[in-house]
Amino acid sequence: MYKTNLNFSNLQHRYLFGEIVNRTTRYAREHPQAKIIKMGIGDVTKPLPPFIIEAMHRAVEEYTRSETFHGYGPEVGYDFLRQAIVDDEYCKFGIGADEIFISDGINSDICNFGELFSNDNVVGITDPVYPAYFDSNIIKGNEIRLLPCKEENGFKEEIPTERIDIVYLCYPNNPTGVALTRDELARWVDYALRNKSLILFDGAYEAFIREDNVPHSIYEIEGAKRCAVEFRSFSKSAGFTGIRCAYTVVPKELGDLNAMWNRRQNSKYNGTSYISQRGAQASLTPEGKRQIRENIDYYLENAKVIRDTVERLGMKPTGGINSPYIWAKIPDGMDSWAFFDLCLEKANIVITPGSGFGVNGEGYVRFSAFGERDNAIEGMNRLSDMLCKK
Amino acid sequence: MYKTNLNFSNLQHRYLFGEIVNRTTRYAREHPQAKIIKMGIGDVTKPLPPFIIEAMHRAVEEYTRSETFHGYGPEVGYDFLRQAIVDDEYCKFGIGADEIFISDGINSDICNFGELFSNDNVVGITDPVYPAYFDSNIIKGNEIRLLPCKEENGFKEEIPTERIDIVYLCYPNNPTGVALTRDELARWVDYALRNKSLILFDGAYEAFIREDNVPHSIYEIEGAKRCAVEFRSFSKSAGFTGIRCAYTVVPKELGDLNAMWNRRQNSKYNGTSYISQRGAQASLTPEGKRQIRENIDYYLENAKVIRDTVERLGMKPTGGINSPYIWAKIPDGMDSWAFFDLCLEKANIVITPGSGFGVNGEGYVRFSAFGERDNAIEGMNRLSDMLCKK
Repeated sequence: MYKTNLNFSNLQHRYLFGEIVNRTTRYAREHPQAKIIKMGIGDVTKPLPPFIIEAMHRAVEEYTRSETFHGYGPEVGYDFLRQAIVDDEYCKFGIGADEIFISDGINSDICNFGELFSNDNVVGITDPVYPAYFDSNIIKGNEIRLLPCKEENGFKEEIPTERIDIVYLCYPNNPTGVALTRDELARWVDYALRNKSLILFDGAYEAFIREDNVPHSIYEIEGAKRCAVEFRSFSKSAGFTGIRCAYTVVPKELGDLNAMWNRRQNSKYNGTSYISQRGAQASLTPEGKRQIRENIDYYLENAKVIRDTVERLGMKPTGGINSPYIWAKIPDGMDSWAFFDLCLEKANIVITPGSGFGVNGEGYVRFSAFGERDNAIEGMNRLSDMLCKK
Repeated sequence: MYKTNLNFSNLQHRYLFGEIVNRTTRYAREHPQAKIIKMGIGDVTKPLPPFIIEAMHRAVEEYTRSETFHGYGPEVGYDFLRQAIVDDEYCKFGIGADEIFISDGINSDICNFGELFSNDNVVGITDPVYPAYFDSNIIKGNEIRLLPCKEENGFKEEIPTERIDIVYLCYPNNPTGVALTRDELARWVDYALRNKSLILFDGAYEAFIREDNVPHSIYEIEGAKRCAVEFRSFSKSAGFTGIRCAYTVVPKELGDLNAMWNRRQNSKYNGTSYISQRGAQASLTPEGKRQIRENIDYYLENAKVIRDTVERLGMKPTGGINSPYIWAKIPDGMDSWAFFDLCLEKANIVITPGSGFGVNGEGYVRFSAFGERDNAIEGMNRLSDMLCKK
């Protein structure tokens, strides 16, 4: 008789974004006249730039002839894309194409990377946090130590005094929008080197960084190649959430991990869509980069609208400067899901309840700056009206 | 200090297909004049049919405007594709769209599905076998029981007498090309129901079935919905090895597994490329199906060329009738890698050494019928010359 993995029963009952969709769908069904503005899920909305569209059309067209047909690609990605990523950024850290592994998404990579470790590691996860880190470690049955990120420290975790073997860091952060300075990140690298710990660094929102003292890559910090794996994606930079392409950087200075991840991907993954990889490559050309930068600037202007409003309303925002996310304190001590329902019902805006990101997110809310300018302005007007009328 | 998963050290040193590529590349470099014919890796080569190409161009074009832009899709796939799969085949088994889970590939699915089980299951794996089943269970640390497939039983495993909790079956088989009849598969379903075991049924090569007594889906067998998960792919049917799209069927009659897989995919996977899903949908329309059937018929005619030659050479082939693979006995008791090297050096043809599929594959070779007709004929001529000259 087969036996299931009982760790699944330790997962929270509902997955956060699924629950948001369910409540929103139900409300929309019952109130078909409501013009709902979605500021909840962090998903891109702007059309892909022409340069990327053209590259993908060309890739599709290659499938019309035997001579240009592409079957299985390399499991870890085509050299053209691995090399483009190196040339664009990682060469300056002395990182080469065989340290870059292409995949369908950061979510897959950061969850699957856990397979490279035994189950007796102490795993450090900041809280609030993107739920996938937490869920994948629950499913695996790991011992998790929460690193609280609280208002009094600007939502930056303290460097731990006890032992943490593997720590997940995401900066610019989802959900708080906070970025670490170079000095702050250097303290983590120092901790990891001293304790032989490993940092799994999620740089999904790197393209939003605008301040000079915020590192774009953890490898800007001396020594990081000996203690950190970096995860990056084309989802939020190039608008690829529906196209699917990401990569993981595993420096050879980490020893076995480079060969182990290579083996894991060769054995358990059959590669990323050729069309997606050609699109991703186009996004790294000078013209592609110029075009996607326009989209990101647009979202960051939305972020300013949201941040300014939320600040004016006394909700003490963080983020929105190097990040598409604005994290804010809910007024009057209301809990997160109650505030979610209130926003949905009274203002017809969908936000993300902070408690969905962990216990330390209770009492907070995440606004997403993805979407149209008009919606950001209208959504903030409705929020203001709602809170001022109360 | 972080600790790695020591199970990785139990993996065979080289991954089969990587080793084939390495040896072939080295030979080609040293013999630039050699016209190498690849009959090794089972990868499609024919252009995609126009109907699928058009669907993918349209999907790319949708990314040019906000109104038709697609961000994150449902983690488990778009309804349009899940429903198309149901309408095409699974409705006749009473299986609905919420029992179909879209992904980037069977390899990912069949490996990741193992996460739903505890580590104290006894896992049955036929031998020879596609290496991913084996490797993923080694990485997880499961107890594996090999089910030998030998010449004397037509390369079909015996139904076990001892306890097997989870069994991987792939029919039509990779690498032997053998298909199970309805009666033979019914004996497995009976075993699973009696022992509360689970069958993980890999139907990657279903599109190649041509004989009437061979079931296309395990759900043609009464009771299979209570004991079997089925894995299917557009890779070998529609030629999607580079496009990436597959699906897993998890009937609700299996109890928790449907919800667990849904949760696993929602937490650890962010969905399959929208463009790939639109292409897959097109392959299921009447016109799409007609066009891909032409490609499969072409490969099956290659298979006949190979099978007939190999038979004439006394190599006792199996497969090649409901499968693109022909499995054959190596003459003179030569071992698989020695025969690989001989074929590469004397005939400039690349085959797959049987030992790469497990201990019971030693002494055998797999020919793949993917490729151009001229290459199949030329490759077989060279093989004949090589073996007759010896």
